[in-house]
Amino acid sequence: MSGTIYVINPNSTVRVTKEIDVAVTPLRMAGGPAIECLTLTEGPPGIQSQRDVDGLIPALLKRAAGLENEAAAFVIACFSDPGMHALREQSEKPVLGIAESGVLTALTLGQRFGIVAMLQNSIPRHLRYLGAMGMMDRFAGDLPVNLTIAEMADDALTLGRMIAVGRTLRDAHHADVLVMGCAGMARFREPLERELGIPIVEPTQAAVTMAIGRVQLGWGGRPLRGA
Amino acid sequence: MSGTIYVINPNSTVRVTKEIDVAVTPLRMAGGPAIECLTLTEGPPGIQSQRDVDGLIPALLKRAAGLENEAAAFVIACFSDPGMHALREQSEKPVLGIAESGVLTALTLGQRFGIVAMLQNSIPRHLRYLGAMGMMDRFAGDLPVNLTIAEMADDALTLGRMIAVGRTLRDAHHADVLVMGCAGMARFREPLERELGIPIVEPTQAAVTMAIGRVQLGWGGRPLRGA
Amino acid sequence: MSGTIYVINPNSTVRVTKEIDVAVTPLRMAGGPAIECLTLTEGPPGIQSQRDVDGLIPALLKRAAGLENEAAAFVIACFSDPGMHALREQSEKPVLGIAESGVLTALTLGQRFGIVAMLQNSIPRHLRYLGAMGMMDRFAGDLPVNLTIAEMADDALTLGRMIAVGRTLRDAHHADVLVMGCAGMARFREPLERELGIPIVEPTQAAVTMAIGRVQLGWGGRPLRGA
Amino acid sequence: MSGTIYVINPNSTVRVTKEIDVAVTPLRMAGGPAIECLTLTEGPPGIQSQRDVDGLIPALLKRAAGLENEAAAFVIACFSDPGMHALREQSEKPVLGIAESGVLTALTLGQRFGIVAMLQNSIPRHLRYLGAMGMMDRFAGDLPVNLTIAEMADDALTLGRMIAVGRTLRDAHHADVLVMGCAGMARFREPLERELGIPIVEPTQAAVTMAIGRVQLGWGGRPLRGA
Amino acid sequence: MSGTIYVINPNSTVRVTKEIDVAVTPLRMAGGPAIECLTLTEGPPGIQSQRDVDGLIPALLKRAAGLENEAAAFVIACFSDPGMHALREQSEKPVLGIAESGVLTALTLGQRFGIVAMLQNSIPRHLRYLGAMGMMDRFAGDLPVNLTIAEMADDALTLGRMIAVGRTLRDAHHADVLVMGCAGMARFREPLERELGIPIVEPTQAAVTMAIGRVQLGWGGRPLRGA
Amino acid sequence: MSGTIYVINPNSTVRVTKEIDVAVTPLRMAGGPAIECLTLTEGPPGIQSQRDVDGLIPALLKRAAGLENEAAAFVIACFSDPGMHALREQSEKPVLGIAESGVLTALTLGQRFGIVAMLQNSIPRHLRYLGAMGMMDRFAGDLPVNLTIAEMADDALTLGRMIAVGRTLRDAHHADVLVMGCAGMARFREPLERELGIPIVEPTQAAVTMAIGRVQLGWGGRPLRGA
Repeated sequence: MSGTIYVINPNSTVRVTKEIDVAVTPLRMAGGPAIECLTLTEGPPGIQSQRDVDGLIPALLKRAAGLENEAAAFVIACFSDPGMHALREQSEKPVLGIAESGVLTALTLGQRFGIVAMLQNSIPRHLRYLGAMGMMDRFAGDLPVNLTIAEMADDALTLGRMIAVGRTLRDAHHADVLVMGCAGMARFREPLERELGIPIVEPTQAAVTMAIGRVQLGWGGRPLRGA
Repeated sequence: MSGTIYVINPNSTVRVTKEIDVAVTPLRMAGGPAIECLTLTEGPPGIQSQRDVDGLIPALLKRAAGLENEAAAFVIACFSDPGMHALREQSEKPVLGIAESGVLTALTLGQRFGIVAMLQNSIPRHLRYLGAMGMMDRFAGDLPVNLTIAEMADDALTLGRMIAVGRTLRDAHHADVLVMGCAGMARFREPLERELGIPIVEPTQAAVTMAIGRVQLGWGGRPLRGA
Repeated sequence: MSGTIYVINPNSTVRVTKEIDVAVTPLRMAGGPAIECLTLTEGPPGIQSQRDVDGLIPALLKRAAGLENEAAAFVIACFSDPGMHALREQSEKPVLGIAESGVLTALTLGQRFGIVAMLQNSIPRHLRYLGAMGMMDRFAGDLPVNLTIAEMADDALTLGRMIAVGRTLRDAHHADVLVMGCAGMARFREPLERELGIPIVEPTQAAVTMAIGRVQLGWGGRPLRGA
Repeated sequence: MSGTIYVINPNSTVRVTKEIDVAVTPLRMAGGPAIECLTLTEGPPGIQSQRDVDGLIPALLKRAAGLENEAAAFVIACFSDPGMHALREQSEKPVLGIAESGVLTALTLGQRFGIVAMLQNSIPRHLRYLGAMGMMDRFAGDLPVNLTIAEMADDALTLGRMIAVGRTLRDAHHADVLVMGCAGMARFREPLERELGIPIVEPTQAAVTMAIGRVQLGWGGRPLRGA
Repeated sequence: MSGTIYVINPNSTVRVTKEIDVAVTPLRMAGGPAIECLTLTEGPPGIQSQRDVDGLIPALLKRAAGLENEAAAFVIACFSDPGMHALREQSEKPVLGIAESGVLTALTLGQRFGIVAMLQNSIPRHLRYLGAMGMMDRFAGDLPVNLTIAEMADDALTLGRMIAVGRTLRDAHHADVLVMGCAGMARFREPLERELGIPIVEPTQAAVTMAIGRVQLGWGGRPLRGA
Repeated sequence: MSGTIYVINPNSTVRVTKEIDVAVTPLRMAGGPAIECLTLTEGPPGIQSQRDVDGLIPALLKRAAGLENEAAAFVIACFSDPGMHALREQSEKPVLGIAESGVLTALTLGQRFGIVAMLQNSIPRHLRYLGAMGMMDRFAGDLPVNLTIAEMADDALTLGRMIAVGRTLRDAHHADVLVMGCAGMARFREPLERELGIPIVEPTQAAVTMAIGRVQLGWGGRPLRGA
């Protein structure tokens, strides 16, 4: 039950890691596990393609291997959950991905979920993942703001696009809950929810929440086995 | 962010509430929300039919209304999630049900989930609920131990049945993660997992975990609305 | 095979019961079962929330229990089918719900069905129910007229809204058959069908049709059992 | 509203038509539509392949065209519903198929339906049809008795096989309602239900029930159109 | 491995057969099977209804029977795949349908496929077929150009309509690959793809490709059986 | 249309590459594209985990980049289709994966497909992929022979296991077509089909077939774009 939850930002943009760190602050509780946010310096500045996703996995696994002893759990903080299943094989600790946890959490807040994505070309990748998760029956839509990680540093621009996309998901796609499809959108959760009037899930917060439970309860990454 | 997570056992069997209380103990963190387990004394001794489920909802809603001001969140601790959607309408606080949270959590631990149910006649009710949740693509099977809440007081009998049912779900239905389909099975999670070698989800623990996140993050039961 | 089909309007608005009574008149055949329409006086004036649905079930079950001996079958005439599964447990007679029968009947009249609902907040409840029924593969859309039971007394207003909603379902959601999502819309079936040119299902008529078959054929609410 | 419901047996085996005639007798009500059962003499003795299904459609359409003026509705009494969609195009009267009506009716009697089929090679054809109907989420299994129409004249043999198949569907496939997958099995509905203790749907009865409603209510085969 | 792939155009419009012949020319390889395109002279000029589909099957089967000895494989070149399953029963050679092959091939080129159909009334027939194929999870939309086979002789008119429909499928239905829903659209594949910037599948080419593999590999229409 | 189809075996076992080479020989046609089979020497000896799959992608992409100019198309010859979507981004040439092509081809040969897998722990990975492909409605089962790539060099052992697994898939899971879930099983296709009497798909042959069509038709890996 001791140990640290390592939240690994698999892109190399430290600004995003800092934003994640702020986002998970309310989940740092006295008596609960430590939560540390790390940047995968070997990762790309932003994760914008399947190549980016696949390419960073070896470095991610290596980084996690080095943390294995100290880790209570791992959270992979990129909405494509790169390397999540590989890390589940490698590590004896619980491993959560923010897309998986974010979407599952959304299902407790509405009947049809939408995703506010970064880029158009992420959508087919998301759809493949949602299909793998068996989530298509609850899926309303997935639309991009079409901003790069760099452009997302502009708050007004980004929030404006998110609101526009969110309105379309709510009104034309009938979503009644939204998931923010990027770890670097955390600071917009509250204004977006206030503007749209439907629940907004920040996926890293959703994943760290699940990780805390896993750690406190001693549910391992792998099941117990009889002697 | 202050307030108590009320875990309401909607059946009137105090033994079950006590077991739930033990189960959630690891989730009581010094800096986290208080967690209080209550018995719905107006509920039936065990919830064994759709009539039981539907019949207790008015009392459950009334009990929750009386707790609304002190509540940080509500968890309904019966695997049929009785009154969950009604309570979500009534309360301004987050409301989690253990079946919903348990199944969603299982999806992070395996690809095909099975359910160890109490009674044969619960199965169609579970299936309707899993269909409503859109979970059938990941569903492996749902099999009963066929014991009443009273009989489940016999540990050896109950664990034996759970192991037998779990083996069938694992070997014949190809489940690689199981959810215990009753709040009163919590004490068997660890021995069952050790025996079967696949992850076992205790659903009240799963729901309280989610509730803690909801409370710490200030995600309301209802979204914020613009002024 | 003798006995009466009781069509229970679970809301307390007698005007709606009278409309139902007119709607089922063509199904009263010499040689066929009697059909009696009743108002659940303990029900809410309109059923507009999950709380309304859940809250009326105890009264509905009690009313039905009092009619059990005389009943040939029961039809629950509210589009949320409140208490349908509970009444199937309680009664030895066939029990039909109008949403279930209405949607299933629509599947014989078109490939993608739409629903003309009363209120926006009914939609997630409908979706949960359609998921439980396994109907999402044939589902085109569900849109509200956003009128209360009281407002629906205004024929011109209601029909106008129904036509507008129906056009959207037909043209933007590609529905080729519609189900009217409220027992109190029966009088609009014919003008709506004439206006839209696609089949319109009145769900109470669909359910009573099924009930007649069940009664004439002696198919019980519960299967025969060997001695 | 006047006119006759024509129940067309598309195979040329008169014995089957006679059995259908007996089966629909309880649905002949003094004040309801006439019901006449016909044999498609041009059809094959039994419908045992996709070629049989496709090959009889021209003759079926021709026969129905000759009955169009007198018809109140048509029921196609073969579990492959041969020509159903073609006849819906050709006729202005309601057209029901027994597989479609039988399966939809089963959904009101249980959560997972099984089919007792005649022959092994019918199963893929049934599965394609169930997929087209969008019914796979509720499907438990489809198993054959492997008897020809001729062999099914032996009651003891046929019932024995049906009971064996039904037990497997109930116990190994978890079906809680069965549809008899052939119009010539009607006389076994009651003994099969008594033996298995779960509801059994006779599909011609299900389809004629729906046809009666359609006729009494004046719901045409095609929707009304505005002038 | 010797023999000819017979591509049968089941409509009687020779212009369409000629267009198919041009389309498959690149698939005629010196060392590969011969490919011959035939017109079913007994077929209707265009296949525009379920009656057209069902009605031509006997003639198609007869024609194929006459070719059985010389055939290496059969391709049915109509987007409703008329008689495909019946011909698979009749013939010992591989049988491919262009709708089936076209849709399956599209799944290798995009995540959500759209269909550019000829006529509005084909859509429900297509949907039934896609359901039978289990393809609805990847389906984006199916929209008609609403031109008859005769009108499609006008290139500018047809291409204009196809582009308009394709844009709607791409932009409003989120298709990222399109299948042309008619054998007579082959000449528009390249300009349509250039205009829309997403892959376009010509379904006869897709089916003949699969047939070539089947022939070269000696995979029969029916599996080998042990002696 | 010139160029070579490169079939890349992403494991480093040359024996498997040689077997693939034999398997694709019938698809080498005069007038058709050249087909060359390569071993990814940087790959693991066998691909037995998600880590193996993810870990080889960078090397695979690099190898393919070096072949880009000469390539007419790429086929990735491992049943997990490692790097398929990444290579589709990287290359301007068509990219096929053997799992995708194998499963899609199976859908033309039966209604419910089974997979004969190598190892138990591949199954959840396969299921995620089948979900991403939207194939679960046609899925019968996926069972392992539980042999390593090394053990599979023993023909008698391997074929015996494949037959046993295939029988279970056919008889207990109701599969009527099987896909061999490993590129190194090609030599068993014919004896397995003869033994089981249902079609067996060799997935590399299926993928190369599709690649040939893509090359001959000039359908690029990416759509044409307007000037």
